[in-house]
Amino acid sequence: MRGAREWLAEFVETGIHEYLPHLSVDCSIFGFHGGELKILLVRWKGLERWCLPGGYVGREETVDDAAARVLEERTGLRQIYLRQHRAFGATARGESVLREILANLGVAAPPDLWIFHRVVTVGYLALVDFAEVEPKPDHLSAEVRWWSVLDHPPLLFDHDEILADALAALRNGLDRGTIGRNLLPEKFTMSELQQLYEAVLGRSLDRRNFQRKMLALGVVERLAERRRGVPHRAPHLYRFVPSPSDPADANGSS
Amino acid sequence: MRGAREWLAEFVETGIHEYLPHLSVDCSIFGFHGGELKILLVRWKGLERWCLPGGYVGREETVDDAAARVLEERTGLRQIYLRQHRAFGATARGESVLREILANLGVAAPPDLWIFHRVVTVGYLALVDFAEVEPKPDHLSAEVRWWSVLDHPPLLFDHDEILADALAALRNGLDRGTIGRNLLPEKFTMSELQQLYEAVLGRSLDRRNFQRKMLALGVVERLAERRRGVPHRAPHLYRFVPSPSDPADANGSS
Repeated sequence: MRGAREWLAEFVETGIHEYLPHLSVDCSIFGFHGGELKILLVRWKGLERWCLPGGYVGREETVDDAAARVLEERTGLRQIYLRQHRAFGATARGESVLREILANLGVAAPPDLWIFHRVVTVGYLALVDFAEVEPKPDHLSAEVRWWSVLDHPPLLFDHDEILADALAALRNGLDRGTIGRNLLPEKFTMSELQQLYEAVLGRSLDRRNFQRKMLALGVVERLAERRRGVPHRAPHLYRFVPSPSDPADANGSS
Repeated sequence: MRGAREWLAEFVETGIHEYLPHLSVDCSIFGFHGGELKILLVRWKGLERWCLPGGYVGREETVDDAAARVLEERTGLRQIYLRQHRAFGATARGESVLREILANLGVAAPPDLWIFHRVVTVGYLALVDFAEVEPKPDHLSAEVRWWSVLDHPPLLFDHDEILADALAALRNGLDRGTIGRNLLPEKFTMSELQQLYEAVLGRSLDRRNFQRKMLALGVVERLAERRRGVPHRAPHLYRFVPSPSDPADANGSS
């Protein structure tokens, strides 16, 4: 197995034939565990700082496929909920860090190497089953691991901004049920649902208002079944209604 | 004033120094008029077909600024509601049409000119005040005009897909009030609001359910004031509540 230096030296030579210049993807990969929302971060060899997993877009690869590839490379998971939240197109996004990595690893590169130029990145958010993920460092990563979204180190490039936007998109998706459908089992109690919402929103919610709101939005429905094997009163089970309703139009077309 | 051919001939020579390769923006510019949702389309010189207004991203320009520039070039409007909905990153998006335009206008270009290569585009949607817009053809456009979103010609490239996605994003924004805030006057009647929603959704809604839903979502509030100068019963006026509420959390934090 080759090391990071050999891999990078070859990349410096041939990468431009394989990848599009000026374009990358970065993935905010979220998991839910122990009542906390987690984010998967990478630390590159030659640097002490962390960032979102990302990569360039292959010349023969769609941008969506590039994001799916990055997700699979870092988590081993395929066919996972993955969607764009935004493209980040500032004129300088911290590309000079790449010079630092190459220098720290002792890889020579021409001063105008394509990867030092401006890169626009497309941000994707993924929701994965925490239990199924084995974070995998690759040839360039020193470490890959889960961090709490409420407590992680400051990120390289503009990745703090990208993560904040992914989190906002995740929160916006809450009332459509998308998040719950991907992060909860098929049947769940109202308090499990509330715990997920609190983890995503990063604050606590009033139990009674939460329940009323969820039922009013028409996103979840109560089942006849109750949770078994719990002491005292067994709580009701709920599920997401099969097709997402349009809040502007519940029972509304004429 | 120079014609399209002269402009293009210079662009073929020098464009790559001014713009990033492989990247563009396309704008779905929506207006609301006569109870109909309209979309601004462009027909290029040298072609019979229509497309969304778009352009390349300047090397010293953010992607958001590129979209704002395209919006201003085509409508004369600045500081308008404009947001990304999605990046479109297929490996071939119909770039060969550009060869056809150059050939039709008699402009010579090397076969591997950068604009014939793969281009990833970032889609933006804009909401503009129909009354304030003067569609302006530029050096490359033969015509720029409003079309009904329900009745427009098939579009070039993958622009039918881009427009469908912009429209879906617009519909998703309905229950947050973003659309209405940008397309309606400050005070409006419930039936004016319903007319807008029907135009955006492309179907009719039940009046009573619509009113109940709008008030339940907490997006609009009824004013003491009524519409003046109308015969019979003067209808109530409404306005959007000052800050958008979070549907997952109405009165909900503890």
